[in-house]
Amino acid sequence: MSASPDELRQAPLYLVLHALARGEVSSEALTGACLAAIARENSRLNAWTWVDDAAALAAARASDQRRAEGKPLGRLDGVPVAITDAFDVAGMPTGLGLPGHPGLAAEDAHVVRRLRGAGAVFLGKTNLDEAAFGTVGRNPHFGDVGNPRYPGRAAGGASGGSAAALAAGHCAVALGVDTLGASRIPAAFCGLVGHKPTLGELSTRGMAAGLRRLDCPGLMARAVQDIGLVLPVLAGYDAGDPRSRKRRVPMATPDWVPGELKAGVVSDLAQLGVDPVVTEAFSLLMARVAPVFGSALPVALDVAPLEIAATRRAALLLMEAEILAAHEARLAGASPRLRGLLEFATRKSAADAARAHRRLDTYVVQVRRLFEQFDVLLLPTVAAPPPAFGAEEPANLADLPALASLSGCPALSLPLSGGQGLQLVGAPGSDLRLLQLGQIIASVADAELLI
Amino acid sequence: MSASPDELRQAPLYLVLHALARGEVSSEALTGACLAAIARENSRLNAWTWVDDAAALAAARASDQRRAEGKPLGRLDGVPVAITDAFDVAGMPTGLGLPGHPGLAAEDAHVVRRLRGAGAVFLGKTNLDEAAFGTVGRNPHFGDVGNPRYPGRAAGGASGGSAAALAAGHCAVALGVDTLGASRIPAAFCGLVGHKPTLGELSTRGMAAGLRRLDCPGLMARAVQDIGLVLPVLAGYDAGDPRSRKRRVPMATPDWVPGELKAGVVSDLAQLGVDPVVTEAFSLLMARVAPVFGSALPVALDVAPLEIAATRRAALLLMEAEILAAHEARLAGASPRLRGLLEFATRKSAADAARAHRRLDTYVVQVRRLFEQFDVLLLPTVAAPPPAFGAEEPANLADLPALASLSGCPALSLPLSGGQGLQLVGAPGSDLRLLQLGQIIASVADAELLI
Repeated sequence: MSASPDELRQAPLYLVLHALARGEVSSEALTGACLAAIARENSRLNAWTWVDDAAALAAARASDQRRAEGKPLGRLDGVPVAITDAFDVAGMPTGLGLPGHPGLAAEDAHVVRRLRGAGAVFLGKTNLDEAAFGTVGRNPHFGDVGNPRYPGRAAGGASGGSAAALAAGHCAVALGVDTLGASRIPAAFCGLVGHKPTLGELSTRGMAAGLRRLDCPGLMARAVQDIGLVLPVLAGYDAGDPRSRKRRVPMATPDWVPGELKAGVVSDLAQLGVDPVVTEAFSLLMARVAPVFGSALPVALDVAPLEIAATRRAALLLMEAEILAAHEARLAGASPRLRGLLEFATRKSAADAARAHRRLDTYVVQVRRLFEQFDVLLLPTVAAPPPAFGAEEPANLADLPALASLSGCPALSLPLSGGQGLQLVGAPGSDLRLLQLGQIIASVADAELLI
Repeated sequence: MSASPDELRQAPLYLVLHALARGEVSSEALTGACLAAIARENSRLNAWTWVDDAAALAAARASDQRRAEGKPLGRLDGVPVAITDAFDVAGMPTGLGLPGHPGLAAEDAHVVRRLRGAGAVFLGKTNLDEAAFGTVGRNPHFGDVGNPRYPGRAAGGASGGSAAALAAGHCAVALGVDTLGASRIPAAFCGLVGHKPTLGELSTRGMAAGLRRLDCPGLMARAVQDIGLVLPVLAGYDAGDPRSRKRRVPMATPDWVPGELKAGVVSDLAQLGVDPVVTEAFSLLMARVAPVFGSALPVALDVAPLEIAATRRAALLLMEAEILAAHEARLAGASPRLRGLLEFATRKSAADAARAHRRLDTYVVQVRRLFEQFDVLLLPTVAAPPPAFGAEEPANLADLPALASLSGCPALSLPLSGGQGLQLVGAPGSDLRLLQLGQIIASVADAELLI
């Protein structure tokens, strides 16, 4: 009993791969179904800023041909993917949510090239906050991104278009940016799994600069297993990225027993400005999930509210400065709002920037010390449920995902009902352990809690 | 036939350790000889800014007691060391070459604590350029550092006091800073071996900030073997340093055959602004040393002169900004010259700082790519011989050592006659390989070339 292309475009990647491998669906039929859905729904969702039907269908047919010959390219052969419009894809423009004509990219970004080498089919580019600077998926040039899973709510950002496309069944898996949570926020808001890998494991070459110190590609999928299929395709040392790292911890199954892990359950959520609704859902889930671990003890991050605001401000100053430095030529047509925000960085001195870096350094040490006591930290993905579509952008949506971003740690976000998320943060290099823990948690948690 | 304390204080560390282990000299006698030499010579050399005879002798006696009981603390038990006055040593002030009274440090810097744990005897703190911002060992508050090996020449900087102390036989080994070459430059100028480890292998906690992105402790010794004895004592992960890294390449003897290594011999020295005298000495040495490697091919760094100046300017801007941010309270008494230099960073914006970071990123990629073709790079340590004592500071002394600093690579400097140096730069993590290569080179090179 084989699923139709329209059913498969909404299925987890691992089921799509089974269907492709068994010949139950062709990449052309699946890709066609995705493109048809995009054509029907994009004017409502504003998920896509660029779609290339002809190139996608040609790539899909080439994949089908390879499979017919028994020579699939790699483990994603024929899979339709969405790429956030901050990554270069050869032959497509890299818009970064800004107006104007950036021209067509000559080369793939490093992670895009790896996807292409594994046989992925690129449908086009997805919408994001202007200059990837935002958390709700708002874009004055391409329209605000709609939330297919929770209509009337923001899709989240910056990589909101990729999340919306995936949630709407326009693709099987999506690549986003995640400098301060930009993939995990929309993943939670749209009911998806989001993963920010260990900093330095994935190259940022060909990914538009946000804040290079923290820039990281992010993955979005419908199931934890799907992340495990895509991550090894993307990860690897790249001499062309100054922050790329040869692996210190092999990304192989580590020698650990889930039942012996020490989990730290972040407890000072009120201090961190978390909405009581989020705190309640998180506590309920923790009560269910705690037996998975050897111990699950409350841990206070002990970050004073003032410090959170100052850390956020420091990260934003550095990001504003880097967006100015990296994309100056593209900013002429930017909205007055964005230009006003970036202007701030021209009024602050190089010494102020050094102070901001020092503040982030202090934060890194605070987080690193937690991993001397705990193997994994558990906390909500975002401090609030998704705000209403078009509402004012709350200031604190990136505060909780920033914990892993600032410290370079991997983080996995599992979807909770209502557009919330459960976040697992591990020590650098523990990506695969997080994925396995995510699967264990999904298997023990209530279906009502964990969607 | 045992050496006298006055002979041993000028011997390589490995001989000192033999003598201590065999009971041929006591730590107290050796330490006393060092302190006596300091008392005789420091008014001429300005190598030391703080000496604590009583504490040093007490530590030496405690070490002798441990050895007498057959319980030495670690592999440096009883060894007199010099610490550049940019590291915290508990109970001593951390002056950083600035005037005023910083108070006594409550805790050791991480690397100092490791030395203490291994039994090292701290004689005091050594002089450096004001705020560690300089390359010749000039200090208006504590006097310019003299060069014991080449009198009439600058000792080099910033860690000039440690180099001078070691060259004068005031200690057996010395710890310096090396953010952009500050240990390798004075090591070359004073006829010593200098090592800048892979970035992140040694903690910078308790080391005064220069430019955190590049800050690295440096080691100085009389023999390559001595570096190999001290490095394992100092290296190790520290959760308290946001840039400390768990090891990706174990610091153990790697699986390699010296005769199969591909060496890149930097060839465009004129382009890099290298003095013809240095180029000639380097070429002569290379002709002798090339057979050590499987291949030794010329490689052009292909860095345009304009880019060198701009990269230097970018690094200095970030350093000026960070010195301002980190040491603001200490700068009131600084020289008008230093304050004028630092002032520059207050006139540049946060966006300018982001541009400077981006320029350094570009440089990192240029160097990383070289290690796709070569296992080790060979180049002079400094572009010019040591300038005359008290002469104007040349602008380019840090350009060649900065290659390894900017890229996070380990670098070893071997002393050549005339205050020059041969520099070996390896890929990150290849520190021990560099040390072994250094010993091989020392064994094949002419005594006249390599001192």
